[in-house]
Amino acid sequence: MDAEIIAVGSELLTPFRQDTNSLYLTGKLNELGIEVRFKTVVGDDRERLAAVLQAALGRSELVILVGGLGPTKDDINRDVVASVLGRPLREVPEIRARIESRFKRLGRPMPENNLRQALVPEGAEWLENPNGTAPGIWLELGSTTLILLPGPPQELEAMFESACLPRLERRTTGERLRSRVYKVVGLPESEVDLRIAPIYTAYTNPTTTVLATLGAIEIHLRARAASDAEAEALLNELGDKIELALGDHIFSTRGESLEEVVGMYLMMRRRTVAVAESCTGGLLSERLTRIAGSSNFFLGGVVCYSNELKTLLAGVPEALIATHGAVSKPVAQAMAEGVRRRADASLGVGITGIAGPGGGTPEKPVGLVFIGLADEKGTSVREFRFPGDRERVRFWASQAALEMIRRRVRS
Amino acid sequence: MDAEIIAVGSELLTPFRQDTNSLYLTGKLNELGIEVRFKTVVGDDRERLAAVLQAALGRSELVILVGGLGPTKDDINRDVVASVLGRPLREVPEIRARIESRFKRLGRPMPENNLRQALVPEGAEWLENPNGTAPGIWLELGSTTLILLPGPPQELEAMFESACLPRLERRTTGERLRSRVYKVVGLPESEVDLRIAPIYTAYTNPTTTVLATLGAIEIHLRARAASDAEAEALLNELGDKIELALGDHIFSTRGESLEEVVGMYLMMRRRTVAVAESCTGGLLSERLTRIAGSSNFFLGGVVCYSNELKTLLAGVPEALIATHGAVSKPVAQAMAEGVRRRADASLGVGITGIAGPGGGTPEKPVGLVFIGLADEKGTSVREFRFPGDRERVRFWASQAALEMIRRRVRS
Repeated sequence: MDAEIIAVGSELLTPFRQDTNSLYLTGKLNELGIEVRFKTVVGDDRERLAAVLQAALGRSELVILVGGLGPTKDDINRDVVASVLGRPLREVPEIRARIESRFKRLGRPMPENNLRQALVPEGAEWLENPNGTAPGIWLELGSTTLILLPGPPQELEAMFESACLPRLERRTTGERLRSRVYKVVGLPESEVDLRIAPIYTAYTNPTTTVLATLGAIEIHLRARAASDAEAEALLNELGDKIELALGDHIFSTRGESLEEVVGMYLMMRRRTVAVAESCTGGLLSERLTRIAGSSNFFLGGVVCYSNELKTLLAGVPEALIATHGAVSKPVAQAMAEGVRRRADASLGVGITGIAGPGGGTPEKPVGLVFIGLADEKGTSVREFRFPGDRERVRFWASQAALEMIRRRVRS
Repeated sequence: MDAEIIAVGSELLTPFRQDTNSLYLTGKLNELGIEVRFKTVVGDDRERLAAVLQAALGRSELVILVGGLGPTKDDINRDVVASVLGRPLREVPEIRARIESRFKRLGRPMPENNLRQALVPEGAEWLENPNGTAPGIWLELGSTTLILLPGPPQELEAMFESACLPRLERRTTGERLRSRVYKVVGLPESEVDLRIAPIYTAYTNPTTTVLATLGAIEIHLRARAASDAEAEALLNELGDKIELALGDHIFSTRGESLEEVVGMYLMMRRRTVAVAESCTGGLLSERLTRIAGSSNFFLGGVVCYSNELKTLLAGVPEALIATHGAVSKPVAQAMAEGVRRRADASLGVGITGIAGPGGGTPEKPVGLVFIGLADEKGTSVREFRFPGDRERVRFWASQAALEMIRRRVRS
């Protein structure tokens, strides 16, 4: 079954807002073996929406119309569907009663236009909205299915899960689509592809897509089969070969972020960490503490931008900075060891570098970063030269530090 | 003139990738008074792309086709345009010569398929690609203009600025569209709208849109006029009234982020800041150091997750934590004062709270955050109860701290 998604709303045609519901819907539809072939964004305009809807109904077996189900006059989806299909709108007493009782409960008078939400095209089913007032609409039109969903993501997602997924599961031919994502760190995209292209090009099912994201390469596998178990078996067959080819460069097989993986290892091994950051400005601490429960492994950090604070907070000897400069291997080492000692942590991390745009010299250019990692066995320091702007250098530096921690605690 | 944008690429129909070029293009087109009426995403499929292109050419005066200009067989845009328009592809000797000399310079043999990039539909102009090899294509088709741009954002943006903007400027009727964004902090959306709706609803030009984003309310004004100066005058007239109604709750009028505004004030006033964070985990330091040149005002920070580190790094007396608990007004005050003193900064910030999901109690629920701000005149502490999940609580807390700094240094 092929699907298309139409997002309705003039705000989605400004530079400031973007349709993100279609990403959620695409993920869910793919799991059912349904591919999305077109996505369209159109404003709150009857004529234009009618044209888009007509084209969609003529070419796709499943059309999902998102947004425009509220009580205001901008909410045109119900009307346009009724007129394109030539079916009158009928009031559903049950929906009307719910809306009226809701306002009664709130002790507020009901604006008349709220009753528009009780209107449904003839022959349609309506779909319960667990998180809002506007019901969804489900229409069977011969071989085509048309679904109207509300725009707010928490309403759309809850309605799709509770009302649409079970209906679509019954209708799909039994073919299932399962996907898996491997995340790789420490290898450039070209090297990843060199290692695995000879493997994955031999398969048409699963299909393989390699995506470069900031700080990681992602390998997406999608398998089709008659059952989930068969699709998983196909994923396992190709996936095992890919895992073998990339080894421990794969840090995640279930979509986890690098900080989640690192946090999991730290908790499993009952290790704690403290960090001293200069050029990353707190980003490494921030990423480690995004994880719920991070107080189990993260003790604290210092952001020592000035030389004085490198000495005061991380115990870096003044003489070391004077001799080697703040951006140097010995200072990264001293920061890692100093913060580890002060916080009494199992592991200490020190990051010093030049994030740019200013501050670079021919000897120490923008992008030069030293990362130290200390534990009870000793301290290792690595030198990096990251490309890109300030934001990228900072992110890459935090990513490299997390990867150093991962390799240390995993073993 | 009405435009529509078609993004081509199967990866844009997966749950993992999204078309973002259209946001950039929409912003630039709006400045020229051109509105975007439709956005479509379609995969690398000749038949489907042809259908989408045909519909677009039938209804829009300006059609921009993005992606699919590379050398591989997935890059179908040139071919599909030629076949939809019934115009043969012709090789442009100048483009061919450039591609050949590029490979000669690199000392590599040229794969034959690269010459596909030298093909252009009969009657088309080609557009220089300052950041890549694939040239763009410009076609005048009676009253319709069709532009083909490459997909990588840095190539698309450079080509659009250098080749498309000047051409479009000559063609637009002289009507100009200018926009302005006010960002507001410290007031809920309903309160913002209550204050300004009576003002902006009296205007149809500029149009006004109020958007709630995480941590701020944005007010977007768009004015149309015969010249930039007239459009600016319209923006000024309505904008002045909005500024009066919202006063110093407006922190930005040119799109700056709150941290940029705070950094600018700190630099202007030659003030420095140091921060002690608990629940925000380094986010406030990270936001303050996103700004290039932040070493002029940001001295450093401590992330003291554990009670021991609150004492060790921020000088919070153990007895204070024992008496009031780590999440308390006195501890936020002591953190702000302690870090200010240690870093010898003009301003000290202390943040302690419960970001969740765990750790809440009936007396101290998830979302409770205390923020202290210390300077030479004294220390103020505010108590907040932020709604939402861990990520939102942390962001809101960093936002509130920045707003406290802004109010302190602005005066």
